[in-house]
Amino acid sequence: MSSVILINPFEVLSGQEEQALEQWERVAEYMRRQPGYISTRLHRAITPEPKFLFVNVAEWDSEEAFFQATGTLEFQELTRDAVPHYPALYEVIRR
Amino acid sequence: MSSVILINPFEVLSGQEEQALEQWERVAEYMRRQPGYISTRLHRAITPEPKFLFVNVAEWDSEEAFFQATGTLEFQELTRDAVPHYPALYEVIRR
Repeated sequence: MSSVILINPFEVLSGQEEQALEQWERVAEYMRRQPGYISTRLHRAITPEPKFLFVNVAEWDSEEAFFQATGTLEFQELTRDAVPHYPALYEVIRR
Repeated sequence: MSSVILINPFEVLSGQEEQALEQWERVAEYMRRQPGYISTRLHRAITPEPKFLFVNVAEWDSEEAFFQATGTLEFQELTRDAVPHYPALYEVIRR
């Protein structure tokens, strides 16, 4: 089974950036400890007034590993009151 | 000057997938010919009912190269009547 790509765009209002980044770091620290985690890259927009200031692109061994990591109480607690975000798992279909 | 990352989420309604993919391929064919283009990966969601069915992640030499490529009449023609999408340029701030 090939790995899967999580892409998670975050809508961050001005003034929320620091708080959103701190929360992302707490969640990333948790995710790095989970089985099946491979890598992550948090992107910050350099284009002015982007719809999504942050976009996280992470790689996981499998869908199951990702769902296991995000199905825990700890994850629910860590992601409570998060800024609006639109996570989904993806596969690459064209290069 | 380091390279920049284009991340472009596409909202694709059911029934529009084929048309959106064909348009993406025409634009990608044009972009591959432009100075400063490095690479692209088109992601398709495997999560059911995603907000963004497609997300393109591409790498460019510089902001200038990207703006040059997207500032032409040919590009405007190729991207006319595109599905809703939210392109922005990014840099990686955390790994």
